[in-house]
Amino acid sequence: MYRTHTCGELRIENVGQTVTLAGWVQKSRKLGGMTFIDLRDRYGITQLVVDAHAAAELVETAGSLGREWVLQVTGEVIERQSKNPKMPTGDIEISLSEIKVLNKANTPPFTIEEESDGGEELRAKYRYLDLRRGPLQRALKIRHQIAHEVRNYLDAQNFLEIETPYLIKSTPEGARDFVVPSRMNPGQFYALPQSPQTFKQLLMVAGYDRYFQIVRCFRDEDLRADRQPEFTQIDCEMSFVEQEDVLNTFEGMMRTLFKNVLNVEIAERIPRMSWYDAMDFYGSDKPDIRFDMKIHEITDLVKGYGFSVFDGVDYIGAINVEGAAGYTRKQIDELTEWVKRPQVGAKGLVYIKLNEDGTIKSSIDKFYTPEQLQAVADRLGVKKGDMMLVLCGAKRKTQNMLGVLRIEMGNRLGLRDPFNFAPLWVVDFPLVEWDDETQRFYAMHHPFTAPKPEHLELFYSDKKEDLEKVCANAYDFVLNGTELGGGSIRIHEAEMQQRMFEVLGISKEDAEYKFGFIINAFKFGAPPHGGLAFGFDRVCSLFGGQETIRDYIAFPKNNQGRDVMIDSPSYIDQEQMDELFLESKAETKE
Amino acid sequence: MYRTHTCGELRIENVGQTVTLAGWVQKSRKLGGMTFIDLRDRYGITQLVVDAHAAAELVETAGSLGREWVLQVTGEVIERQSKNPKMPTGDIEISLSEIKVLNKANTPPFTIEEESDGGEELRAKYRYLDLRRGPLQRALKIRHQIAHEVRNYLDAQNFLEIETPYLIKSTPEGARDFVVPSRMNPGQFYALPQSPQTFKQLLMVAGYDRYFQIVRCFRDEDLRADRQPEFTQIDCEMSFVEQEDVLNTFEGMMRTLFKNVLNVEIAERIPRMSWYDAMDFYGSDKPDIRFDMKIHEITDLVKGYGFSVFDGVDYIGAINVEGAAGYTRKQIDELTEWVKRPQVGAKGLVYIKLNEDGTIKSSIDKFYTPEQLQAVADRLGVKKGDMMLVLCGAKRKTQNMLGVLRIEMGNRLGLRDPFNFAPLWVVDFPLVEWDDETQRFYAMHHPFTAPKPEHLELFYSDKKEDLEKVCANAYDFVLNGTELGGGSIRIHEAEMQQRMFEVLGISKEDAEYKFGFIINAFKFGAPPHGGLAFGFDRVCSLFGGQETIRDYIAFPKNNQGRDVMIDSPSYIDQEQMDELFLESKAETKE
Repeated sequence: MYRTHTCGELRIENVGQTVTLAGWVQKSRKLGGMTFIDLRDRYGITQLVVDAHAAAELVETAGSLGREWVLQVTGEVIERQSKNPKMPTGDIEISLSEIKVLNKANTPPFTIEEESDGGEELRAKYRYLDLRRGPLQRALKIRHQIAHEVRNYLDAQNFLEIETPYLIKSTPEGARDFVVPSRMNPGQFYALPQSPQTFKQLLMVAGYDRYFQIVRCFRDEDLRADRQPEFTQIDCEMSFVEQEDVLNTFEGMMRTLFKNVLNVEIAERIPRMSWYDAMDFYGSDKPDIRFDMKIHEITDLVKGYGFSVFDGVDYIGAINVEGAAGYTRKQIDELTEWVKRPQVGAKGLVYIKLNEDGTIKSSIDKFYTPEQLQAVADRLGVKKGDMMLVLCGAKRKTQNMLGVLRIEMGNRLGLRDPFNFAPLWVVDFPLVEWDDETQRFYAMHHPFTAPKPEHLELFYSDKKEDLEKVCANAYDFVLNGTELGGGSIRIHEAEMQQRMFEVLGISKEDAEYKFGFIINAFKFGAPPHGGLAFGFDRVCSLFGGQETIRDYIAFPKNNQGRDVMIDSPSYIDQEQMDELFLESKAETKE
Repeated sequence: MYRTHTCGELRIENVGQTVTLAGWVQKSRKLGGMTFIDLRDRYGITQLVVDAHAAAELVETAGSLGREWVLQVTGEVIERQSKNPKMPTGDIEISLSEIKVLNKANTPPFTIEEESDGGEELRAKYRYLDLRRGPLQRALKIRHQIAHEVRNYLDAQNFLEIETPYLIKSTPEGARDFVVPSRMNPGQFYALPQSPQTFKQLLMVAGYDRYFQIVRCFRDEDLRADRQPEFTQIDCEMSFVEQEDVLNTFEGMMRTLFKNVLNVEIAERIPRMSWYDAMDFYGSDKPDIRFDMKIHEITDLVKGYGFSVFDGVDYIGAINVEGAAGYTRKQIDELTEWVKRPQVGAKGLVYIKLNEDGTIKSSIDKFYTPEQLQAVADRLGVKKGDMMLVLCGAKRKTQNMLGVLRIEMGNRLGLRDPFNFAPLWVVDFPLVEWDDETQRFYAMHHPFTAPKPEHLELFYSDKKEDLEKVCANAYDFVLNGTELGGGSIRIHEAEMQQRMFEVLGISKEDAEYKFGFIINAFKFGAPPHGGLAFGFDRVCSLFGGQETIRDYIAFPKNNQGRDVMIDSPSYIDQEQMDELFLESKAETKE
């Protein structure tokens, strides 16, 4: 071992001991003949000191060190003259008797500090240097901790972690698969799993009762910001359970994580909200309930009074922004422009202020009496000094825009503290949604989700409007406006699964080809079962108080799906292509 | 929840309670008007009984049940008349008041018992049914346990589990990569990792100090028996360590596993053997030291006495098979045929018996005096009643054949009890080995392994014979004749890594293209580091007392790399091919 202690370990009690440390030079500086060196490792930073009167060679070595050099040093722990209460090791320093340079280092292309001066692209290329910085070290540490706590909790609940294969079969339903050509089976391909969904259901058929896996999943999608082609799930499944059992089990898991990782106590019972309420009151299937500011429909109060914009739409909705009556004309104009951006897509924005003096001022004053506007204010529970914001149009679309606006106002009012945690279950999702373009139903969750038992009659109906009403035994776990996980009670009968494929317009032949093995499996005694999966990367980032997942993944890819550090993907040898019986039709080739 | 208890839980103390169980019908039988049903789940089997005088409907349902049907039953726990001491639940049974059939089941294509009557192919196709059998349930359970113990041990030792990417870069050195075409980067490919080797080294450069991961790896090799295209490693790396530190850390891990999973105490210090001794005395780099039967060189004792077979070779070696002097002519002939099979490849076999009466009998009696043969016997420490077996030829090749023969004799003599565990470290491997065919050196371990510091001069020599003498700081963990893991202290200096690539005949350009990022990383302050990886599938199978890994993997592939359950790999749509800019040149296409 190159060291007796780590750089985060020594305290005042160690004074007088001779120790050996190893680590990186964080910085070094001369001060009145003395050389001070901050030596860093994963565990902390310890200050080293070389006296001006020390052996000439030692003084010289100490003076020659560069940032990020790797050292092994030996010396005596002494009490510091000027202590640093901000550092756990701040009471002591090491008076060096020996410095051994284990490795020199080129000057890093950016500073290895809490905040780096390097641009994103540069830091991605030198990811191994960026990973030395405190925020990333803490990110990967919390990731390890969360995984460890998850495993301990689930193990204690009798779950078995069972690995499912990564080389599986392409089933083009939903997102695109990454595929892997098989050399031994010419012309054929494996696919990388988008999730272990079918395998975990087969494990239930196989009687494993409680399964989990922290597992990589793959989706070949055009990458939106903060999406990765490979990502990690906490994937779980249970047999002989109803929805309530699943929710309770994973409420317990999340409570344990909050407690053991962050020392945060969350509510004894996580609130539950139906998907319909989430859409109606928050304009989102993942409401941020850290703040209220609910959406209220006001169609009945303002439609039909001669204001043509409102009169021509199905739905008019409003939110109340507390204390915002002071918003200036300029601020409101800016907000109007903001909602008109294509990312939101509103045609315009109506405001109604309830001034501190009790008067009402709005952009639609000429169409409504103050009494009419007061009725709107009353519905929203508006107080003096508040301002309502109103949007109108098609119902779900407008609710959606109001939801986006609500989040924006929450941000502007500082209502979204990342360390205030407000978890929520969203339940009672529609089973399927109609797509006008392809003229077919798609599974809202996935094709294995069971309809609610009380909706079975609707599920077997031939009418589109009946099928649209079917609710699923599905649930999402939402934290602070982000969907962290979701799942459902599954179909466990072959016949019902066939019906589901029929509803989705998947032909019997197609279903047989793609899902034959699971339909078949259901014929041999499938138990009732259900489960869920959490997006592990996002769990980690939210626990770390961050919105982006990239820092919580050791080696992420950029928005073009590239790893710029290793320069991948890359071209392969013709020989490799030949072995795989493949020819490239790509035009650009190096 | 569909149950109040599992099928493995109820005891005599529960008598009188009304309980609800759920599970599968293992079997049912009628006995004097009563119906007995064995209900099974992952946790055990509980006997259910329906009295002849019970409600008619209940009696009828009980009579109609088939094997593997899924039931929910309610009844009262009663004491059994005839107890079954072999079952944990054998003191009680449930007198049923209700049976609910949750799912019927087709008759399974083979029996779901400890030993199934199904052939391998059939069981693979219905893997989800095979997985219901006791041996497989125990296999996956021990796998979960081992993983859990590994993680707890390493977490306590300050290791962080850090996930490395699965979509990486193809570096065709060693085995073949599986590749993944990139849609977003036309003509380019990712590769699936053969191991996270470079990433874990980069994590050391990044200062993570102690890393581990239980991680899937991929190798597109022609599958030998008991190899899988995807397999799992326990992958570990540590900074600021020497070989001794790595060995101690993982001896501790293995000791903990043996203790906590199997309740077996292994030696305080696992024996260590140099690679050279392993080859000389066991004819294998993974000696099975559960039994002795060492190989002895006897060239000096028998060469040059006019027996042309021995006189024409470099090396003559022998093993002593204790108590085998009674082997008949026929048995020896059979053994001779056995060593002449191509799998072993010997030209012939010489035996020398030391009979119980002290006389010597051998197949080479006419060439040697009894005294000369006695000298051989003395060297091997042969006792009366033993028989020596002698092979000759080129040194390493002959040692290898003797090693294979030794294992065979160990098997025949019953010296290889799978529940007798004899771990061993093999150390001091050669750094590189020469390949005559391609006229170049190959890394014995991998190109990142460091030469022993005391061999640095040889490492920088231009002479082939010097380079062949260089030992590496490499080590293998061997259990009962199987290599379970291996690793090394790594090169951490860019200059030494360049030299290694030079020794391996990898051009600067090639090295730069394939490994540029890691050579570059070493220039920014790489710490001394080393690590190892265990083959997790094999660890599990050996802990389970089995030689094959297939039962320890939930969904394995067959020898053609196929998953016959999901029928993968398979053809993909032309549309998918087009999106990937690929054309298939395979001739057979469905």
